[in-house]
Amino acid sequence: MIEQYEFPNGLVLVAEPMPGVQSAAFTLLLPAGSAYETADGVKVESGAASMVAEWIGRGAGDRDSRELLNALDNLGVSHSESAQTLHTSLAAATLGRNLIPSLELIADMVRKPTFDDDEIEPIRALSLQNLRSLEDDPGTKVIYELRKRHFPEPWGRPSPGTVDGVTALTADDLRRFHSRTYRPNGAILGVAGAIEWPKLKEAVGRLFGDWPKVDDGRIHERPTGPRRDHIVRETQQIQIAMAYPTVTVDHPDYYRARAAAAILGGYSSARLFTEVREKRGLCYSVYASYESQKDRAAVLCYAGTSTDRAQETLDVMLAEIARLAKEGVSAEELRTMRAGLKSSLIMAQESSMSRTNALASDWYFLGRVRSLDEIAARLDALTPEDVSEFAAGQGQLDQMTILTLGPTPLKTPTTPG
Amino acid sequence: MIEQYEFPNGLVLVAEPMPGVQSAAFTLLLPAGSAYETADGVKVESGAASMVAEWIGRGAGDRDSRELLNALDNLGVSHSESAQTLHTSLAAATLGRNLIPSLELIADMVRKPTFDDDEIEPIRALSLQNLRSLEDDPGTKVIYELRKRHFPEPWGRPSPGTVDGVTALTADDLRRFHSRTYRPNGAILGVAGAIEWPKLKEAVGRLFGDWPKVDDGRIHERPTGPRRDHIVRETQQIQIAMAYPTVTVDHPDYYRARAAAAILGGYSSARLFTEVREKRGLCYSVYASYESQKDRAAVLCYAGTSTDRAQETLDVMLAEIARLAKEGVSAEELRTMRAGLKSSLIMAQESSMSRTNALASDWYFLGRVRSLDEIAARLDALTPEDVSEFAAGQGQLDQMTILTLGPTPLKTPTTPG
Repeated sequence: MIEQYEFPNGLVLVAEPMPGVQSAAFTLLLPAGSAYETADGVKVESGAASMVAEWIGRGAGDRDSRELLNALDNLGVSHSESAQTLHTSLAAATLGRNLIPSLELIADMVRKPTFDDDEIEPIRALSLQNLRSLEDDPGTKVIYELRKRHFPEPWGRPSPGTVDGVTALTADDLRRFHSRTYRPNGAILGVAGAIEWPKLKEAVGRLFGDWPKVDDGRIHERPTGPRRDHIVRETQQIQIAMAYPTVTVDHPDYYRARAAAAILGGYSSARLFTEVREKRGLCYSVYASYESQKDRAAVLCYAGTSTDRAQETLDVMLAEIARLAKEGVSAEELRTMRAGLKSSLIMAQESSMSRTNALASDWYFLGRVRSLDEIAARLDALTPEDVSEFAAGQGQLDQMTILTLGPTPLKTPTTPG
Repeated sequence: MIEQYEFPNGLVLVAEPMPGVQSAAFTLLLPAGSAYETADGVKVESGAASMVAEWIGRGAGDRDSRELLNALDNLGVSHSESAQTLHTSLAAATLGRNLIPSLELIADMVRKPTFDDDEIEPIRALSLQNLRSLEDDPGTKVIYELRKRHFPEPWGRPSPGTVDGVTALTADDLRRFHSRTYRPNGAILGVAGAIEWPKLKEAVGRLFGDWPKVDDGRIHERPTGPRRDHIVRETQQIQIAMAYPTVTVDHPDYYRARAAAAILGGYSSARLFTEVREKRGLCYSVYASYESQKDRAAVLCYAGTSTDRAQETLDVMLAEIARLAKEGVSAEELRTMRAGLKSSLIMAQESSMSRTNALASDWYFLGRVRSLDEIAARLDALTPEDVSEFAAGQGQLDQMTILTLGPTPLKTPTTPG
């Protein structure tokens, strides 16, 4: 039984009691991703969203940094605060009896951070270290850089920022970013596990009910690119990343899109895996994944392989994307995809933490939460013809972004015109 | 209620039905880690254990590679087969109703792999790709290299092997490795979730009961080192890794050892985290973790940071290890550690997959499975004096291995004598 309530200030609480579990988890999504760094003179690509997510944990309410971390640890809370492009998310899991005391601490962090100026330099140093570690992690780096080139600005902006951006930020920039983006309207709190709905609703009302609304900032979208690019790095492997548009979660074709992406590269007998990994031994990790935002979505494909086999890997991946569009999918592939997707959905539902993600994410995309039965029924209703028809329009080269990272560039098909 | 049964051939089945879940998971631990690559002329550091773990998935029983992967995917099984130093582990999760059909497939993989020679070159290519990707992942690489220098050979041997070793392996080497190490004696099958014990026991007996024993191979231990080392790599960050001995899981001081390691670096207000990350912003990730084998155990410490701050980071880490030995722990720290450890144990118990790990691991170390209540009672019984007394003998420099990886070496304290 899924419960939901929208407070007058716009905060949405969506919760699911899970019988038989002792844990409780929550995810608070705030409209405070790096995409919102533009307004009010906060420097773009500054890493402001990430730095604020770190700063709020360093003292809040009447607790200093040490006392706050200790209080969370004493409640046995496993927690993380992180900024992505669209949201800043605060996620936590603990025992059910500690849920409301944990929410009280999180409410302080979000609404009453101490924002001690002395913390700025250690936080800036951390952000710079994070950017360096990204340079030593080419597989993660290439996906950040792919999103940046594929989605219109600011919807692909990497949350870690840039060295120049992080270096230039001031404490006032961060305070401004916080006051504009940490707000109830646009925020979603998903809670799951050992919870009592009336008590939870009362507590969330007490902690967040009088949190004042803030107007939406204006976002100026700009085209990005290039659609073909190479980043030179003296790595051992060449990283290959591609993206092409697909439909969003609220689109009528959503299930067809998910099925097509999964059959391309979502499980261990999927096409990319079979052709790239099994048959040719080109790389350990190769996949295609579906990624949606509110107004745009993409299929992301990835592989990392040695210089001498990189061109072959890229060619095979492109051939598989083209074959999916041309030949469609078989009834057997659809059956396999369905079994895997249903099984993983059921298993994910048994974890309070992954359940909170599903609750918050469904609300964000759809304004409601889907039941497992609904998802299963929609998957069952798909036919091979359905999915093939959808796939026929997918993965066109002129809409595809192809990015490689490594010592030498590869030959990529040119975009027409 | 934990069920257990040892078959006459030595295979141990240990299972825990979890009410209210639909999933079932299992972990099969085989005594087939890279440490066992020595005997019968199989080349050491050959990656044989990893390659066999890949080969068994490419056709088994009357199914070819494609049919086998498809059969697993059609049962909605999420699975992985991987070799570590001590074990090869086959882990799988699916819906309870698909558990026994999944076990049938896994039994074929383990006992009746096709071992088609045509698969060798793709598998070798994969293993070589994996070694290359490790070169692009300095944080993972440094931990492999730390274990190799700290534990006596072969107990720290990295499972990916070396380029020379992987290149030289033959199909017959791999068959020999399989016939010697994939065996019931020394194997443990942990199962948890939606299971019926009598049916499970009957099925495991049918699938594995007539699997013949194989004699233990002899292992020749050799000392390793050096205790101080630097690996030159043109990375952006310097990786710092250290290890020092502690007691094993079956030792009377085990809980004191776990408490000391956790207070040093096991949670977000732990000492290393506070001193290295919070106060100085030296790196995002810093930790101390406890790692046990049957006859030896170590505390592993890790940090990755920029060249200009690496010496400071190393010095602070060593100072914290020394301070723990000298000053011991406070009652407050012990309370915080307890809250965190208990909370994470309870949460881990709610996942069928992490439960199978605990079942198999407890059996391996202790020959029995501990209840949550037992662990909680042992943690509750600890006093600050207990833990401080234990910590006083820990982290001595002459028993510590310190390894760095990056452009330039650091100054490390010399070992006496």
